[in-house]
Amino acid sequence: MKTRKSIFDIANMLLRRNNFYILTHKSPDGDTIGSAFALFYALKKKGRKVRVFCEDPFPEKYEFFINLLNNEENFEPHYIISVDVADTILLGENLEKKYERKVDMCIDHHASNKYFAKVNYIEPSAAATTEIIYDIIKNLKVRIDRSIAECIYMGITTDTGSFRHTNVTAKTHRIAAKCIELGARHNLISRKMFDIKSTSRIKLECVVMENIELYYKDKCAIAFISKDMLEQTGTREEETGGIASMTRQIEGVLVGVTIRERENGEYKLSLRSGHEIDVQNICAKFGGGGHPNASGCTMTGSIKEIKNKILKELEFLENYDSRF
Amino acid sequence: MKTRKSIFDIANMLLRRNNFYILTHKSPDGDTIGSAFALFYALKKKGRKVRVFCEDPFPEKYEFFINLLNNEENFEPHYIISVDVADTILLGENLEKKYERKVDMCIDHHASNKYFAKVNYIEPSAAATTEIIYDIIKNLKVRIDRSIAECIYMGITTDTGSFRHTNVTAKTHRIAAKCIELGARHNLISRKMFDIKSTSRIKLECVVMENIELYYKDKCAIAFISKDMLEQTGTREEETGGIASMTRQIEGVLVGVTIRERENGEYKLSLRSGHEIDVQNICAKFGGGGHPNASGCTMTGSIKEIKNKILKELEFLENYDSRF
Repeated sequence: MKTRKSIFDIANMLLRRNNFYILTHKSPDGDTIGSAFALFYALKKKGRKVRVFCEDPFPEKYEFFINLLNNEENFEPHYIISVDVADTILLGENLEKKYERKVDMCIDHHASNKYFAKVNYIEPSAAATTEIIYDIIKNLKVRIDRSIAECIYMGITTDTGSFRHTNVTAKTHRIAAKCIELGARHNLISRKMFDIKSTSRIKLECVVMENIELYYKDKCAIAFISKDMLEQTGTREEETGGIASMTRQIEGVLVGVTIRERENGEYKLSLRSGHEIDVQNICAKFGGGGHPNASGCTMTGSIKEIKNKILKELEFLENYDSRF
Repeated sequence: MKTRKSIFDIANMLLRRNNFYILTHKSPDGDTIGSAFALFYALKKKGRKVRVFCEDPFPEKYEFFINLLNNEENFEPHYIISVDVADTILLGENLEKKYERKVDMCIDHHASNKYFAKVNYIEPSAAATTEIIYDIIKNLKVRIDRSIAECIYMGITTDTGSFRHTNVTAKTHRIAAKCIELGARHNLISRKMFDIKSTSRIKLECVVMENIELYYKDKCAIAFISKDMLEQTGTREEETGGIASMTRQIEGVLVGVTIRERENGEYKLSLRSGHEIDVQNICAKFGGGGHPNASGCTMTGSIKEIKNKILKELEFLENYDSRF
């Protein structure tokens, strides 16, 4: 159901409940984890019982900023909230099976959101879901402490690629300013999120870069990451976050495609573009989605077939002139 | 002379003059160019004659955001301002010779500033000199248009590594928010400043990474960039900006040293550190300077001697435990 509830209504609906489950999306990132734990801490401060659930374990770099020991209480929920989840399939197999039709409130910033919950608060103009969570927490009348501020900042900085993406607004920076004033160790977060790479990850980047292919007068780059490359360089799956942005770093490239080999002949495609070109539409044709400049989809077939399919959708680049 | 003039005084001193030269530092970066042209546009709006001078040509990526055609008027200056220049030697050989003792006002954020001008407005808490320029322009009572906003944003984002460095404050983000509201194409600036790399630069990064050396239980990384490597990969000098930050990307590295071969047996060292470790002090011992977490110096001798000298200063890392 599409709702037109205000952020004030949303906060009040939460205040009428006592026990919460908060669900993140699978393969959790800084925004879904930051959203879940900012809300977790805020509701705890209001004396509520809260627990966060995620299909997959949290990558180590996020754990520095959250206290998982507090997340072990057993209880039955009165109210189930999902954060940064556009579609129930993104909950992951187990959580989807359990909660598909039971999510009471969905808080998200994806324009592609499926409105699967009883109440859906979707704000596509927010750069990160934690921007929305920040507004909700202010309306809960909770004092934002360092832990909450760091979770909110973490969501913002990861979902904006450190304030570089098109989704950044003046409001994004104002919330970041507030988080810093409230004690968020912004530099430490940035370092953990972006700067630090394992030597194996660095090796992987070099291998990927050496094998990148350019098409359509170098306006399209296709990178391929095989399971072999991961093994060869000793890179673990969880160390590969953000690697899809490499394609767009090459001078003149307007659309970058990263094709990653998965299990069972499946390939995950990640498309990145500048603000002029909408890749969400392209991914939607293959059953995927995301944001206009950062989207993904899954394909099966031979790598050659997959390349041809995606290159066909990008044919317009041949005669496309960027103004920038 | 150390002055305690307020930003209001500074603006009023400018308003009492008619013809300005603005000097940037040599090897110009986003902050010195952004500062110079933001002030240039603002003073032009006040009907003043203004011209910006720089020892070296501006790298292409900055030229997108400034109008150099307006910077060709010939006149004699009443007043000479330097922006983001910590010491007259940084003006470059020609500009230093001409203006060493003639700078009327020095506007800068380097704590190491030498106070070489008649009036020195130094604010080390500013993440970028353009933060100071923003305050001055507000006091000039000039309406900040898109050109000015983009120059200010450019200085902030380049000097903070896209809002990641320790120097970022809440104020930094608030000014960025203002710039975006005033029309700055922030995403375009970020892309031009950070994301786009030539294929030769990408190749260079891979070569450098392959040859990096780790010391002191992997807490110190030394990268070496020879003239040969530039030639081999076809990388031009001006494409190598920001390459010093590579060393600190490696997991566990607390201090990164990048040694670049220059002409005549000279080597330029760039040191990068986390907020706990002050590398400015170390560079100062070799006649260099900068900021606590990003400093540089020049050395001569064999590469082995240079490495030994700098490693000696970093010996404390062997038994140093980072809390982060």
